[in-house]
Amino acid sequence: MTPSLVVENARTEAGEIASLILNNDRIAAIGPNAAAGIDPAVPRFDAAGGLLCLPFVDGHIHLDKTLIGLPFIPHIPGDTVARRIEAEKSLRRTVALPVEARGGALLEKLAAYGTLFVRSHVDIDTEVGLKGLEAVLSLKQSHGHLVDIQTVAFPQSGVLRDPGTAGLLDAAIAAGADLVGGLDPAGIDNDVTGHLDAIFSVAAKYGVGLDIHLHDGGALGAFELRQIADRTAALGLKGKVVVSHAFCLGELDDAEFGRTAAALARSGVAIMTSAPGAVPMPPVKRLSAAGVRLFCANDNIRDAWSPFGNGDMLERVGILCDRQDFRSDEDLAAAFRLATQAPAEILGRPVEPLQAGSRADFVILPAASLAEAVAARPLDRIVFRGGTIIARGGRLVI
Amino acid sequence: MTPSLVVENARTEAGEIASLILNNDRIAAIGPNAAAGIDPAVPRFDAAGGLLCLPFVDGHIHLDKTLIGLPFIPHIPGDTVARRIEAEKSLRRTVALPVEARGGALLEKLAAYGTLFVRSHVDIDTEVGLKGLEAVLSLKQSHGHLVDIQTVAFPQSGVLRDPGTAGLLDAAIAAGADLVGGLDPAGIDNDVTGHLDAIFSVAAKYGVGLDIHLHDGGALGAFELRQIADRTAALGLKGKVVVSHAFCLGELDDAEFGRTAAALARSGVAIMTSAPGAVPMPPVKRLSAAGVRLFCANDNIRDAWSPFGNGDMLERVGILCDRQDFRSDEDLAAAFRLATQAPAEILGRPVEPLQAGSRADFVILPAASLAEAVAARPLDRIVFRGGTIIARGGRLVI
Repeated sequence: MTPSLVVENARTEAGEIASLILNNDRIAAIGPNAAAGIDPAVPRFDAAGGLLCLPFVDGHIHLDKTLIGLPFIPHIPGDTVARRIEAEKSLRRTVALPVEARGGALLEKLAAYGTLFVRSHVDIDTEVGLKGLEAVLSLKQSHGHLVDIQTVAFPQSGVLRDPGTAGLLDAAIAAGADLVGGLDPAGIDNDVTGHLDAIFSVAAKYGVGLDIHLHDGGALGAFELRQIADRTAALGLKGKVVVSHAFCLGELDDAEFGRTAAALARSGVAIMTSAPGAVPMPPVKRLSAAGVRLFCANDNIRDAWSPFGNGDMLERVGILCDRQDFRSDEDLAAAFRLATQAPAEILGRPVEPLQAGSRADFVILPAASLAEAVAARPLDRIVFRGGTIIARGGRLVI
Repeated sequence: MTPSLVVENARTEAGEIASLILNNDRIAAIGPNAAAGIDPAVPRFDAAGGLLCLPFVDGHIHLDKTLIGLPFIPHIPGDTVARRIEAEKSLRRTVALPVEARGGALLEKLAAYGTLFVRSHVDIDTEVGLKGLEAVLSLKQSHGHLVDIQTVAFPQSGVLRDPGTAGLLDAAIAAGADLVGGLDPAGIDNDVTGHLDAIFSVAAKYGVGLDIHLHDGGALGAFELRQIADRTAALGLKGKVVVSHAFCLGELDDAEFGRTAAALARSGVAIMTSAPGAVPMPPVKRLSAAGVRLFCANDNIRDAWSPFGNGDMLERVGILCDRQDFRSDEDLAAAFRLATQAPAEILGRPVEPLQAGSRADFVILPAASLAEAVAARPLDRIVFRGGTIIARGGRLVI
């Protein structure tokens, strides 16, 4: 079969200059001599020595919340999570663009930065019902050529606190959501057992995973993490549960950190962090050393929760490095993987390494190493999706 | 006199659309109707509704340290400040580009982002002597058309720890450095009184200010801050002393914070923070409420201390907002001023508000408010210096 494209002069992570032979949406061959003997009539793309990388995975976003696509809307301050939830609902009733337009605009931005797989939480509550989910599911159709989308039915207003939500979570999974969400069993629902009973029972009924937002701090948050780990193991959900945020892991003494991390590792519960700046964050190296899987993601991107965020995972990696004092090449490369390989594995997407037979999804960055890419955060990147260039220099070209 | 340029359709901070009339390097008039009656032959520039802002001030950089202009150099890890100092000296001996080239390249980047005034610390030690200072002073000549430069004679290797440095600091001021620097009197020199005696005596001899790097933590750092405040008051240096970093201010109990902040406010000692991610930072609102002046700056930009940093003060403002949990329009606008008006005042540069008679140094940002500019961090900015556009879209155009 005649290849569709030869990508020449790409640099592998090992520093080798290689060619990639693409057959439509697949990598047919890769290596220093892969282009030898290829018909000279096959189109060539010169990667100019750029670094060949896995595409980014943004494993925690909110496609229904984003205000991208609208003029800037000032943040409505709220000093508790409960007040912010109310402020967001109020804004949601009046916002001028539907989820399809805002979420679609965000997906286009993400793809332009090289993010080709996302997990989106979608608010489920008794006011919005499944409307947000239906809109996000429609984005799978309209934007699936750019980004693969996984969805979490997320009870942003609580489960017990907003009676009727448990049934909606069940209906959301039946309607096509991929995972059951959860939120601060103590801090929002004021009932750790009741909240976890509700969400784990939906997950068990459908055999799906969970992704639980946990802001509760200190010993309380750690207790909830261990409860989640125990239920995960008991229900045979090992490897299918993520806890997002888990600020508490940055606040524990050695003993409590040790037994909490051990429980997470044993049950295969993974941690998502956005490397937040104003609260404690999970310590990346200590968790890795304890066998806990972790990835980073953007979370709020210009929404009612934060006016900040541009969607660039390479910037998020840099923020994580800043918060964790990562400076060496080794640490920067490890941080890069928290936005590529780690979330792909944890989110259950078959990781397709950059080798023959894999889908031709990759990013070429103007850098000689992962460390340089992380430190310099170049926008001048080339994004391949299914063997085609979909973005250059931070802009879609299809 | 015929104006040199009319800038039309600019948005003031108050949201008003105004014109600026420029007479060469000065603002001749500004206001909604300022362009009325101006000769139609005068050149026009359409600001397209962009926000008219003061230029950025980067009040803490290291022009002699930066590796900008060189291929990426992996960070050499060091687990103590002393080890990092040695690693940097080792690198300095072999680096392939002189300070003039690296510092010049950095100044060009800064100007392209809209930073028109910097304070650069310059290493002074018994190995490098005044060579770094002489190089940075030469940048005042070569790059003064882009950026105004203030210099600090900075004893990066300590004063008592590197005998002979005190005399070099004296010689540095005599040679044209603007301020005397200092560094962790306890942590590096192991002698609070001895270190402060040495640097304050040079400052007193020449009647110049000081800018002291203080990483020492907790009660020790707070003690040193109060010592610095007392000496500042005693020597009549009120308003001429800055302490950079002062991580300790983020670690104190209310009582010690209160008396330390009161001492700083009383003596007019200001605080510089880069809003570091991995260590405590000075609490911005609490310090302001206590009457302590504060500004933010980039500090290390791609050097032996950090592979990160691009020089954009608008990004630094966003990092500070992240660390301080600033989200409201009011907080974002206040943070913006920590990179413009506040450092200009603290560093002793006459602040020239955007009004008739002022120097025509300003930046036009594609945003409707300071908050939007901070949240969105647009690169598509237009930088005026002395009445001329020197940069657009993050690139110099002169």
